[in-house]
Amino acid sequence: VADEKLAEAQARIDSQAKPQGSLGRLEEFARRYVAITGRDNIRRKVVFTFAGDHGVVAEGVSAFPAEVTPQMVLNFIDGGAAINALARHAGAEVIVVDMGVNYDFPPLDGLLQKKVARGTANLAEGPAMSREQAVASLVTGIELAFSCAEDGIDLVGTGDMGIGNTTPSSAILAAFSGLPVEDLTHRGTGIDDAGLARKLSAIRRGLEINRPDSGDPVDVLAKVGGFEIGGIAGLVLGCAAAGLPVVVDGFISTAGALIASELHPSVRDYIFAAHQSVEIGHRHMLQRIGQQPILDLDLRLGEGTGGALAMSLIEGALRAYREIRTFDDAGVSAGGDR
Amino acid sequence: VADEKLAEAQARIDSQAKPQGSLGRLEEFARRYVAITGRDNIRRKVVFTFAGDHGVVAEGVSAFPAEVTPQMVLNFIDGGAAINALARHAGAEVIVVDMGVNYDFPPLDGLLQKKVARGTANLAEGPAMSREQAVASLVTGIELAFSCAEDGIDLVGTGDMGIGNTTPSSAILAAFSGLPVEDLTHRGTGIDDAGLARKLSAIRRGLEINRPDSGDPVDVLAKVGGFEIGGIAGLVLGCAAAGLPVVVDGFISTAGALIASELHPSVRDYIFAAHQSVEIGHRHMLQRIGQQPILDLDLRLGEGTGGALAMSLIEGALRAYREIRTFDDAGVSAGGDR
Repeated sequence: VADEKLAEAQARIDSQAKPQGSLGRLEEFARRYVAITGRDNIRRKVVFTFAGDHGVVAEGVSAFPAEVTPQMVLNFIDGGAAINALARHAGAEVIVVDMGVNYDFPPLDGLLQKKVARGTANLAEGPAMSREQAVASLVTGIELAFSCAEDGIDLVGTGDMGIGNTTPSSAILAAFSGLPVEDLTHRGTGIDDAGLARKLSAIRRGLEINRPDSGDPVDVLAKVGGFEIGGIAGLVLGCAAAGLPVVVDGFISTAGALIASELHPSVRDYIFAAHQSVEIGHRHMLQRIGQQPILDLDLRLGEGTGGALAMSLIEGALRAYREIRTFDDAGVSAGGDR
Repeated sequence: VADEKLAEAQARIDSQAKPQGSLGRLEEFARRYVAITGRDNIRRKVVFTFAGDHGVVAEGVSAFPAEVTPQMVLNFIDGGAAINALARHAGAEVIVVDMGVNYDFPPLDGLLQKKVARGTANLAEGPAMSREQAVASLVTGIELAFSCAEDGIDLVGTGDMGIGNTTPSSAILAAFSGLPVEDLTHRGTGIDDAGLARKLSAIRRGLEINRPDSGDPVDVLAKVGGFEIGGIAGLVLGCAAAGLPVVVDGFISTAGALIASELHPSVRDYIFAAHQSVEIGHRHMLQRIGQQPILDLDLRLGEGTGGALAMSLIEGALRAYREIRTFDDAGVSAGGDR
């Protein structure tokens, strides 16, 4: 994103009848959106909720059974989940992408069938997927981003569904950061102490057995990732390439964004970090991608819920950008230090 | 607000198909709104932007000249200010209340004429207003709250406009808290070091000359307050009395809410703190009223801007409350620690 475009947008903001900088981060949201897209409004907003299953649930790492992944996909399609409610509130569409659910869905409106496989293998015992499968999941996300650009979608949100998917997310972060697994691994949907111990053990074994190469993000995705995480990583890559701002939801989405960012650091300019998750590793991910979260509401649901809320704030920032009059137009005396 | 009503609302949330507590503070917003109002939706939302002038600007405490107060009131009426843009985004109406602007406005749609006087006296030299004037400003706010309850307004926001009004706000906080003035006083709209020194001196002199009685919040309002701050304090009192949730904007609004809270601590249950202001004293105010800010976006504009953004998040929380299906309805298997 060109510095002069950012400066141009900020110059407009600074002409508006209000103390300089007084809208704080709203100014940042508007400045970045305008510099990225060349627009000052949003035509269509879409949240992609990528779904996939995880072989590592066999290790007892989740409080929910794996059958919940397809059940929730059907709930998304029926419009009854949290992401549906919050996307309606934000005026965003929800598109569900089956990246690798362990269930065969019939053709359904609102469901994109992009299944790479029926769930990953157990990362605690070997690679979660092959390198070819990792690349396929990335390509799916990239293609979706480019189709958004063609369809007049100006703001893209990421979301996830996949029982067990905080486990690969923590593993990905551990692979890149080298930080102790226990500092990056939390309770997900709400496991107890014994579950957390199993989760830590599964991640440690996964890293030891698979030895993901932190200099090769595709290898990290293949060894300890997930299909929905690959889809998210591809979407972030594709949005940056297509010149679309992308609102990255919480812990799992940021794991995907981290893979994209390690592949191409310039994608960071296109990322809006929706919120600070309760998951303890999330802070480290956000530091690595150099983005401050927009919201901090103790969310830990995923699906894209934090992203939908953040989209609405970005849209509010653009409304302020478009509609606040300048000092001249409003007939307001400008200030100055005195 | 009755504990059983809060528990009843939370029980509904806990039946929804998502991990318990995973919507974090959105659950708190919905639970409190439902318990306060008995409703699960919002019919009308209104932001009251209270305006007043301040004799203390003679001390050189603001980066803007006092004439900006009436200029901005006219800008609000014309719909060209930040609060107008952000209220439109939130679907809220803006009502501007002239509590004490040093200017005679003609009758104008959207402007309520409730002028107590044409600006306060200089608090650095004596009381800002008489006790009668302080009571009159409180009564105006209380009456507005009751008229909201009659008019089907379910969510009320506070806002302020008044050149110089961070000075009385810091003074009010100093009077109640006894904390050092320099820890509570910041740069407002952006004064330089010399301006900050004048502001600190004005507040110190005001506290010394007036000796506001921290056990008598009306005395604090009269001695070192402002007419718009009194209107906000009254609105918060009235909302609590009328059973309406009130979204309190930033530093100046929270000074008003603090006066209300010191008069009647039970008003705190009805307050939603919109955001964490950049003003350094704000944190102390929020601690005293026992509310966590909803947003933290480095805002320091006032007008009700943070409140409008927070209203939209509360509405999103209610949408989630109404529309997320239960585990049973959605056909999703419930989790459990395992």
